[in-house]
Amino acid sequence: MNRVDGAAESYVVGVDYGTLSGRALVVRVGDGAEVGTAVHEYGDGVISAALPNGRSLPPDWALQNPQDYRDVLRHAVPAAVSAAGIDPAAVIGIGIDFTACTVLPTFADGTPLCEDPDLRDRPHAWVKLWKHHAAQPHADRINALAHERAEPWIGRYGGKISAEWQFAKGLQILEEDPEVYHRAERFIEAADWIVWQLCGAETRNVCTAGYKGILQDGQYPSEGFLTALNPGFGDFVTKLDGPLLPLGAKAGTLTATAAAWTGLPEGIAVAVGNVDAHVTAASAQAVEPGRLVAIMGTSTCHVVNGRQAAEVAGMCGVVDGGISPGAWGYEAGQSGVGDIFGWFVEHAAPAGAASHEHLTALAASQPVGAHGLVALDWWNGNRSLLVNHDLSGMIVGMTLATRPQDIYRALLESTAYGTRMIIEAFVEAGVPVDDLVIAGGLTSNELLMQIYADVTRRPLNIIASAQGPALGSAIHAAVAAGAYPSVHEASQAMGKVHEAVYRPDPDRARAYDALYAEYRALHDHFGRGGNDVMLRLRAIRNAAVGTAEAPADSAPVTAHETPLEVVA
Amino acid sequence: MNRVDGAAESYVVGVDYGTLSGRALVVRVGDGAEVGTAVHEYGDGVISAALPNGRSLPPDWALQNPQDYRDVLRHAVPAAVSAAGIDPAAVIGIGIDFTACTVLPTFADGTPLCEDPDLRDRPHAWVKLWKHHAAQPHADRINALAHERAEPWIGRYGGKISAEWQFAKGLQILEEDPEVYHRAERFIEAADWIVWQLCGAETRNVCTAGYKGILQDGQYPSEGFLTALNPGFGDFVTKLDGPLLPLGAKAGTLTATAAAWTGLPEGIAVAVGNVDAHVTAASAQAVEPGRLVAIMGTSTCHVVNGRQAAEVAGMCGVVDGGISPGAWGYEAGQSGVGDIFGWFVEHAAPAGAASHEHLTALAASQPVGAHGLVALDWWNGNRSLLVNHDLSGMIVGMTLATRPQDIYRALLESTAYGTRMIIEAFVEAGVPVDDLVIAGGLTSNELLMQIYADVTRRPLNIIASAQGPALGSAIHAAVAAGAYPSVHEASQAMGKVHEAVYRPDPDRARAYDALYAEYRALHDHFGRGGNDVMLRLRAIRNAAVGTAEAPADSAPVTAHETPLEVVA
Repeated sequence: MNRVDGAAESYVVGVDYGTLSGRALVVRVGDGAEVGTAVHEYGDGVISAALPNGRSLPPDWALQNPQDYRDVLRHAVPAAVSAAGIDPAAVIGIGIDFTACTVLPTFADGTPLCEDPDLRDRPHAWVKLWKHHAAQPHADRINALAHERAEPWIGRYGGKISAEWQFAKGLQILEEDPEVYHRAERFIEAADWIVWQLCGAETRNVCTAGYKGILQDGQYPSEGFLTALNPGFGDFVTKLDGPLLPLGAKAGTLTATAAAWTGLPEGIAVAVGNVDAHVTAASAQAVEPGRLVAIMGTSTCHVVNGRQAAEVAGMCGVVDGGISPGAWGYEAGQSGVGDIFGWFVEHAAPAGAASHEHLTALAASQPVGAHGLVALDWWNGNRSLLVNHDLSGMIVGMTLATRPQDIYRALLESTAYGTRMIIEAFVEAGVPVDDLVIAGGLTSNELLMQIYADVTRRPLNIIASAQGPALGSAIHAAVAAGAYPSVHEASQAMGKVHEAVYRPDPDRARAYDALYAEYRALHDHFGRGGNDVMLRLRAIRNAAVGTAEAPADSAPVTAHETPLEVVA
Repeated sequence: MNRVDGAAESYVVGVDYGTLSGRALVVRVGDGAEVGTAVHEYGDGVISAALPNGRSLPPDWALQNPQDYRDVLRHAVPAAVSAAGIDPAAVIGIGIDFTACTVLPTFADGTPLCEDPDLRDRPHAWVKLWKHHAAQPHADRINALAHERAEPWIGRYGGKISAEWQFAKGLQILEEDPEVYHRAERFIEAADWIVWQLCGAETRNVCTAGYKGILQDGQYPSEGFLTALNPGFGDFVTKLDGPLLPLGAKAGTLTATAAAWTGLPEGIAVAVGNVDAHVTAASAQAVEPGRLVAIMGTSTCHVVNGRQAAEVAGMCGVVDGGISPGAWGYEAGQSGVGDIFGWFVEHAAPAGAASHEHLTALAASQPVGAHGLVALDWWNGNRSLLVNHDLSGMIVGMTLATRPQDIYRALLESTAYGTRMIIEAFVEAGVPVDDLVIAGGLTSNELLMQIYADVTRRPLNIIASAQGPALGSAIHAAVAAGAYPSVHEASQAMGKVHEAVYRPDPDRARAYDALYAEYRALHDHFGRGGNDVMLRLRAIRNAAVGTAEAPADSAPVTAHETPLEVVA
């Protein structure tokens, strides 16, 4: 064993910051046992209609109040320690993970601009939540210019950066509220900001810097590029730059103030920030190259380590050390998964069949292909590989004999085909995917899991923790505290996975090959220009309903839709 | 007025023979007033599992008992006269319409073979109902050979005859029960057989002879063609040939026996037989060329008169005088219409929305295109123009915001697009379609009717009788009785239609042009070889479920699916 002596009696705390709440988890360092947990909901939640003081916001905005993040430390952490029944003095470190890109402007000392009375009523002074989608025009310009100038970094993001990311959000601030832009001395991920609140030192983690901040090979986009976007944007990188630390590194030690908030000992290790999906690789014992983690909830986020850098069209990004130190971390995503199944149960299943359990039981008894259907799983657009949120869903093969369980099963299968498309893109680009580890709420659907094994022709391992992200943060805290020499060793000791729970059945896998070929042909026809009917229907729809009242689903597809907390 | 003096006090009886029952309607000759009606259900209904004596039948068989047809005369006719409260002596004629091709083998005197004690347990001795689909292999051979030999008549049937028709069913008898084939001196449509029962004389009506018997330009398929199919089949035409009479002609007069059955006066006129869909043109005042009648129920049958003969790929057929004397009658069909809407309500609508009324009300408030969807209406295959029952349904455009009323409306629209495809095929072939008359149960859905007007860009007239076929038969009875000089005049006096109830709205029609273009592109892609995924999915499905237990919807698409009685 690699753990240090006495670690069996030590504990660490992982804090998982989601979209609506934060969860603290107390974990035993020696074996990863989860001994206590607590949740604290954000007082202001997602601020999308109006600021707390009443000022209304335009469509597609999504802000948060940074004080809510501090309140998680003040409430959830002591409650988790109390629930664990341990002596707080036994806690040797704390780590966090966050939604991303969730980002805020601060002064040089870390004070959020929105906490300055003069700026409190300025929307751009607040935290921009990951799903703030009002910077789409800015992202479009960044992408167009990057391709025009053949910027080397654009290939590292599958050819397209997201409207959610730091540069799009920063450019929006500059152009819509220059004063806020200029007064912002720092522009920082919430993941790094809350670490700053814990340890009093500003740091930047390589994960968000790489996936959300376009930091590649040690370089941000050049001043020339930024100036070409907007002459005033040339200094943006100076607001981002800070001590860059690898995942699992110690950002600092717990300050007296933060110790008072949390009830934890002053001076314990504070791990550098991390992202909810990526940190799950550690809790799922999936830090070795070739093992793809799929965090499956309302949407799916895929992360996998590779030994080399490769460009994969349509992936979200590849970052050196972005998942685990010493490997290239790849991310991809499916923008609708559990959301689609939920839509079906709520809006398309008749009274007698409107439950996941019932539909799954009926669907499970069918031979592969017996329903005669194939669907394209684009109800919420397509993130990977097509990166187009205006794509939509399709089903083919219905007859008068088609029953709800038939369509339900076809929808389950369609998401598995979408995952296989992503896996094949990785493999073709030279990034091996040998097996899968599944995390997230959908792991409980055994039929779905078996379908994924059969369709992908790969064994499925299932994470053995219900709190994958918080456990991952605790693992990184243990590393930061020196209890383990590396994330790899800590993951091995503290992570939890049931190995090869589902294995592909050769007959079913062969049957699925034929259906997957149909999916792939439809995917390319509707998604790669054969027939752009989906895009035209979207335009017709938008014109028909009027631009003033965009439908609820009109938000762009996002690189990171935080599936984790929705299904936890 | 063209009617003869005193006709105002005269009555005629129309009898509509459906799939499960027969309806008699007493109609005033002078103005078409419907004064009494009654229905009699067939005792043996559709015989599909086993003969009445217990002998089991293979899959896809559908037989009937001819005695049930006589019982309609014995029960429904007197009951209708009684309900009308008229003196039976005031009835001057009787006419009938029937499902087709519903056909039976008889001896030379008209006695059905199944009424011979020696043949009663032979399935092939019974009436083959229109939806007897076990002769598909025989139809396939007929079609293949017709194209191989470039038979001139095959183009008159859109390139394909149906497994339901006389030659396919006759060939099946020959090859599966040669003794029944050889003992059958006559092979006759039930429409003509029941007329024989009424008047004691064998006749053949031009409608079924043309549409179901391949009689074109006075010729049946040649002996050489038939012998090439099977050396024993060369004499088949001798079993069909008989006095051929135009629609509205008098087949004979009511016999004493039939007078006793019906309670009607012996010696009154008996009109030649007719088909339920085609006879409706007379009741809908749609006998002039350019006015297309769509009988819309579970499926839709389209009939329209044209001045010249033209070949329209994918139509069911064109017959000289087949709808009205003096015009070329065209027939086409959509194999699933109301069936699809019913499927949606029963199997795909959530509890709160599972009614046609509710869904229609919600769907009606949408601007055209607001749901962002297009569907292909092939849940029951495609009759016209593609003539392929292995095609299946498709919907594209779903998002998480898609609601049941969106899909429901898209399904309504898809059937309207299918009708427009048929109309355009007629027009392109030189058969004008100026306006539409809608009959059948779906006329009550105002949203559906307006959609059809907008999509087809044509005014919609609505038949003003709930008993279109029986009224049409009564009109033909009045002509046969000499009360009117022609079907045209009788239709004008006795038929009923609300003119131009729905007119196309220019803005909506323009919006639908864009969506129809999408439908058409998808129609051709999935239906004309761009991607045969539907056919492959059907084959995969059939292999998966096993050929032994074919699903309920696997019956071939039929040229005539008697939408009428299902919705009456």
